[in-house]
Amino acid sequence: MHATPKTTGPASPGKLLYAQSGGVTAVINATAAAVIETCRKHKVTVYAARNGILGALREDLIDTTKETPAAIRGLAHTPGGAFGSCRVKLKSLEDDRAKYERLIEVFRAHDIRWFLYNGGNDSADTALKLSRLGKTMGYDIRCIGVPKTVDNDLAVTDCCPGFGSVAKYTAVSLRECALDVMSMMDTSTKVFVMEVMGRHAGWIAASAGLAGEGSDDAPHIILFPELEFDPEKFRARVRETVDRVGCCVIAASEGIKYADGKFVADAHAGTDAFGHTQLGGVAPALAGMVRDKLKLKTHWAMPDYLQRSARHIASKTDLDQALAVGKAAVELALAGENAVMPVIARTSDSPYRWKIQTAKLDKIANREKKLPRAFVSKDGFHITAAARKYLSPLIRGEAPPPYDRNGLPEYVTLKNTAVKKKLSVFAM
Amino acid sequence: MHATPKTTGPASPGKLLYAQSGGVTAVINATAAAVIETCRKHKVTVYAARNGILGALREDLIDTTKETPAAIRGLAHTPGGAFGSCRVKLKSLEDDRAKYERLIEVFRAHDIRWFLYNGGNDSADTALKLSRLGKTMGYDIRCIGVPKTVDNDLAVTDCCPGFGSVAKYTAVSLRECALDVMSMMDTSTKVFVMEVMGRHAGWIAASAGLAGEGSDDAPHIILFPELEFDPEKFRARVRETVDRVGCCVIAASEGIKYADGKFVADAHAGTDAFGHTQLGGVAPALAGMVRDKLKLKTHWAMPDYLQRSARHIASKTDLDQALAVGKAAVELALAGENAVMPVIARTSDSPYRWKIQTAKLDKIANREKKLPRAFVSKDGFHITAAARKYLSPLIRGEAPPPYDRNGLPEYVTLKNTAVKKKLSVFAM
Repeated sequence: MHATPKTTGPASPGKLLYAQSGGVTAVINATAAAVIETCRKHKVTVYAARNGILGALREDLIDTTKETPAAIRGLAHTPGGAFGSCRVKLKSLEDDRAKYERLIEVFRAHDIRWFLYNGGNDSADTALKLSRLGKTMGYDIRCIGVPKTVDNDLAVTDCCPGFGSVAKYTAVSLRECALDVMSMMDTSTKVFVMEVMGRHAGWIAASAGLAGEGSDDAPHIILFPELEFDPEKFRARVRETVDRVGCCVIAASEGIKYADGKFVADAHAGTDAFGHTQLGGVAPALAGMVRDKLKLKTHWAMPDYLQRSARHIASKTDLDQALAVGKAAVELALAGENAVMPVIARTSDSPYRWKIQTAKLDKIANREKKLPRAFVSKDGFHITAAARKYLSPLIRGEAPPPYDRNGLPEYVTLKNTAVKKKLSVFAM
Repeated sequence: MHATPKTTGPASPGKLLYAQSGGVTAVINATAAAVIETCRKHKVTVYAARNGILGALREDLIDTTKETPAAIRGLAHTPGGAFGSCRVKLKSLEDDRAKYERLIEVFRAHDIRWFLYNGGNDSADTALKLSRLGKTMGYDIRCIGVPKTVDNDLAVTDCCPGFGSVAKYTAVSLRECALDVMSMMDTSTKVFVMEVMGRHAGWIAASAGLAGEGSDDAPHIILFPELEFDPEKFRARVRETVDRVGCCVIAASEGIKYADGKFVADAHAGTDAFGHTQLGGVAPALAGMVRDKLKLKTHWAMPDYLQRSARHIASKTDLDQALAVGKAAVELALAGENAVMPVIARTSDSPYRWKIQTAKLDKIANREKKLPRAFVSKDGFHITAAARKYLSPLIRGEAPPPYDRNGLPEYVTLKNTAVKKKLSVFAM
């Protein structure tokens, strides 16, 4: 472990502030581990903001130098967000001026010279806004976005750290439960629906398609949020599949919509006999339709957070990329770059090869990369060979965590020692 | 591979019929693999009934001698039921006489002398009835029950093959998603509900308790089907937990009931605005209650079949026991035993040691072993040290399947070659 140099004034090397933002993933902590380890190599102190940008606003900072090298190594195989994350978006400089001034006050008080924001397209927007503080408000801070999202919807980058692992979880789980359904279809469940994340983009739904290879393999139907959901066509396809295969296994994105633009999940929400809200989901809605109209026995699953925190079945490719963007982000910051993000560029499909490139944040902030139509089969119910070529390498390789003698993964909990506050409370 | 001896008449060594019954598990195929491998060692031909007892009634038999040794080895790491299973219960000899006569006809036609039925307490009942055919109907068949159930509710045996793996899946998944919830609780989800299987017995719910060790670790609340569900007490505990810990992670059995005996899941089912059935679950019902009354942001997960087919996170202890009961069942059959089941006896907690013993089927058929009250904490919301001592060894050790170069588990599909029929169709 290195000692933190006591620094004051602009001549000091300054500190690097790292924060996690938005929904967490199975490998965002691997990125955090790479950030901290790379900084340690360069003798740069890393503070982490507790609960994303909120920690910066609240001056609630964590001193990562208090963590042992073993704890940081353990972080690389621990899911969730070790420093806390948040769902908070900064408005424009004009609309949120007090907050930007507060951030500068906090950065100045703690000699923060580099800010690494690990998140999706909203976070890239926040990082972009902060990168302009030097010009607009006279405080020289270098802001680097670090990609992370299970949704795989960031522009420019070939894929997003976090996605490969949720894709692997989805494909493996679907392959497994399809074997279960096929065993029992003669006298039990005929139709099984697995709901997956991805409210606007169908990348996770598409990854379910990797579970099978032959034309009668599960999943038999995939429902993508990019395509309009037609209940008639859906039921006809279910019927036809059950008649041909004996069962029908469906992967459905949480974000599928009717022709009128209404989310299927919302349309089928309601209240129960007690007057309680029915917190719907797409899976129970689809299962209800099939049961009522086709009179077939159904089951459904909704893994929800389990899918994005399933570090035990992480993709090695994904883990490697999560580590690589963390390291690259630090190197970009220390090289004086600003308003950029290290992204993944695919250089070859077979053998799969990739490298880290640098992208400008303004090409990424607030943009959303949806599943290309060419990745969806003509009938709209499956993925194409092009999709397989893209998706397949992202779930390759296993990277299981270590297990303790009781058979549970050894996930680490950091000390998360608070940095002593120097400022008064900021009212938000 | 050995050749099947062509046998006719009572002097032949006969064949062994193996069948899978009821809900499948992550390791029931491991038991099948052990049955087949042990028989091969003893030069006994194994037929498998397609879809459990139905295959026997329909004379739909599978010749396992057509499978390669590699395929049978692969079976040991493949979830689901490779020969198909069923949910069918035979009535008494008086009520179902035609079926029993048909079974004897099929057994006689194919020289079946041993019948191994791999299932839970219903299947033990079927095996027990068949074991009496020798006395009641003059056909000498040796019937051995082979234990299998994720519910862990079989009498006599210390635990049931299939349970340790679903318990491990549950504990690991809960530990993972709790890290996710804790990362986000400041601005997002405060209450998370994970629904688990176990309609009458709380063994799987209890296994969720292994995910945490400290008093503030998740799960913060476990809801067992053996205890009456009191919505007031539940909400008070949720409120108190969120106030103290910042979030509340709940593991709920699908089988929890109100004081009036009504299942919570059924009570909250209904119809949506379209008049479709709402296929409820306990998790959305509980989440709805928390959201409406406590005004807290909730999320919920329902892994459903994913939990019992998750071979990728199987328990090594469970796998070893699934293999051991398969081998023991064949040895019991060949030794001339009848109406028995090989069961697991625990000989030591620490270090954990177990051995196979023989139990009479009439001590197991139709009985149900619920979670002892001593395994549930006084307040009814968690497990005790006694429960941990019992449960912990069952999830120990990892036994991952092999993965292919595309990052997916290499699960096998058998040829399942049908045995040529000798009889006319049986109308059921």
